[in-house]
Amino acid sequence: MNTIHVALVQQRMLDDCQANLETGLAQVHEAARRGAQLIVLCELHTSLYFCQEKSARHFRRAQEIPGPLTRQLSHAARKNRVVIVGSVFEKRARRLYHNTAVVMDQDGSLAGIYRKMHIPDGPGYYEKYYFAPGDTGFLPIQTSLGRLGVMVCWDQWFPEASRMMALSGAEVLIFPTAIGWEPDNDDEEKQRQVQAWQVIQQSHAIANNLPVICTNRVGHEKDLSSTSMGIDFWGQSFVTDAFGKIVTQGPADIAETLHAEIDLGETQRRRQVWPYLQDRRIDAYGDINKRFVEESRDSRSAPASPDTGSRKTRR
Amino acid sequence: MNTIHVALVQQRMLDDCQANLETGLAQVHEAARRGAQLIVLCELHTSLYFCQEKSARHFRRAQEIPGPLTRQLSHAARKNRVVIVGSVFEKRARRLYHNTAVVMDQDGSLAGIYRKMHIPDGPGYYEKYYFAPGDTGFLPIQTSLGRLGVMVCWDQWFPEASRMMALSGAEVLIFPTAIGWEPDNDDEEKQRQVQAWQVIQQSHAIANNLPVICTNRVGHEKDLSSTSMGIDFWGQSFVTDAFGKIVTQGPADIAETLHAEIDLGETQRRRQVWPYLQDRRIDAYGDINKRFVEESRDSRSAPASPDTGSRKTRR
Repeated sequence: MNTIHVALVQQRMLDDCQANLETGLAQVHEAARRGAQLIVLCELHTSLYFCQEKSARHFRRAQEIPGPLTRQLSHAARKNRVVIVGSVFEKRARRLYHNTAVVMDQDGSLAGIYRKMHIPDGPGYYEKYYFAPGDTGFLPIQTSLGRLGVMVCWDQWFPEASRMMALSGAEVLIFPTAIGWEPDNDDEEKQRQVQAWQVIQQSHAIANNLPVICTNRVGHEKDLSSTSMGIDFWGQSFVTDAFGKIVTQGPADIAETLHAEIDLGETQRRRQVWPYLQDRRIDAYGDINKRFVEESRDSRSAPASPDTGSRKTRR
Repeated sequence: MNTIHVALVQQRMLDDCQANLETGLAQVHEAARRGAQLIVLCELHTSLYFCQEKSARHFRRAQEIPGPLTRQLSHAARKNRVVIVGSVFEKRARRLYHNTAVVMDQDGSLAGIYRKMHIPDGPGYYEKYYFAPGDTGFLPIQTSLGRLGVMVCWDQWFPEASRMMALSGAEVLIFPTAIGWEPDNDDEEKQRQVQAWQVIQQSHAIANNLPVICTNRVGHEKDLSSTSMGIDFWGQSFVTDAFGKIVTQGPADIAETLHAEIDLGETQRRRQVWPYLQDRRIDAYGDINKRFVEESRDSRSAPASPDTGSRKTRR
């Protein structure tokens, strides 16, 4: 057994960045007191989810790395001797911003950063206005607890991202997240969305035999542009083991810090039986780097009879 | 709505290839009578799952394409005016065999073949002894009902395979399968395996917004080499919609033909809200074509303080 005690700070955000940060750091302190070694905060955990609208005034929130926020996270990590996964609206240069996860090691050092690679852009989630696509690639961050495959929210829907983290030696997949319901979705659609969100992340655990940690915020946040009814962030932060089983999950509507044990040794035991990395067809995955593969490239349209030995699809 | 009535022939195999084929074809006929348009048989549906042992005598079962088996499937497709997904132990050349899915169109023509790309090899599933890795790539097969993303069994555990089918325009993902329990697994482990098997395939539906069809055999089959307790094939064939919801599922221990409607129009509606194909980072997926990415490639080991601006992981 090589277990790590993890804590997920499922937070409800206020329109007060300092209060949000203080709440988060108090939860870090309390979780550490209860034995947590790795503590994962939500995506953009100091603010309301401002990407519901496109407004230049929100760029004022952005900070450099290192900057005030990373210094406070660093201090909290060192003081509590924990590894913290935090989230920063990163100002990298003039009018160049990222949605960036930061990892602070137990000694307070910045173990590494991950700039969100897949950026969503649709009603309620106008992130392409704010964030440039990340350029860190899908590389795990080495910490004293192991190699953390930290990604962010929308990345969780792309199997390629988790696979690449696994190929680079990640020992756990971590997704700080901000996702919720449109208030006027019907209950069935709401449950279907949560179900899909869980299943896609459980599948990364299964496909790569790695535990998954996903921290999501809760609570209703208004759309300040008043073009929509806002978002009900659905909480339900969860942890899976290395075979996709959900071992703990938070409520949908209450701020709560969850605790779980993950066993980094399970990966080796599961991969013994499910040796995907051995059987991957790396000679045949080239088209995955394409946007789309057009239909015209083979002679699929030519009909033929099986008795002649020819085929509609000549491969 | 662009719905297709599909049927899955979840079969129990006997040690009698002719009887197995007759049972399968009788089910095709009955399913067609009930309105099925697309009928999916199991992997290697004419025989016991002989890959439990490695024995040269089983190569006698292999057939060419076209050959007697494809001619009978062709006849059944034409007679019943249905599309059939069948499975052939294909003899391609002297001592060159494949585990091959075949698709017969409603006019009896061979619409295309798919040679199993990912080949398992472990206790109970010694397929690398029998089957060469496929060389068809992950290309959907054009039929009168749409483009079928036909893969086979072990492929279902590799997200790359389904993604590539989607990128090549597949409208549904189809997995003829032969998977089961070791009889001495405990109940919890058995349920975990089925759960993982469902979730990984539901995830392909979610990640690509495509319906999934998976047909599995049922029943206990002995290990003829007597080195194991055999396999209890777990049935539970299922169909999902294009957002991963299981819309029908078979029993674990009874041969049964399942019916379901799939709506090929749902893909477009779901992709409107979940535009993964638009947001994929094809500039950053290069390492997915590698076997593994060694740790040494960046300077992850150099510790640093956040206050200096340097990072353990320089990205």
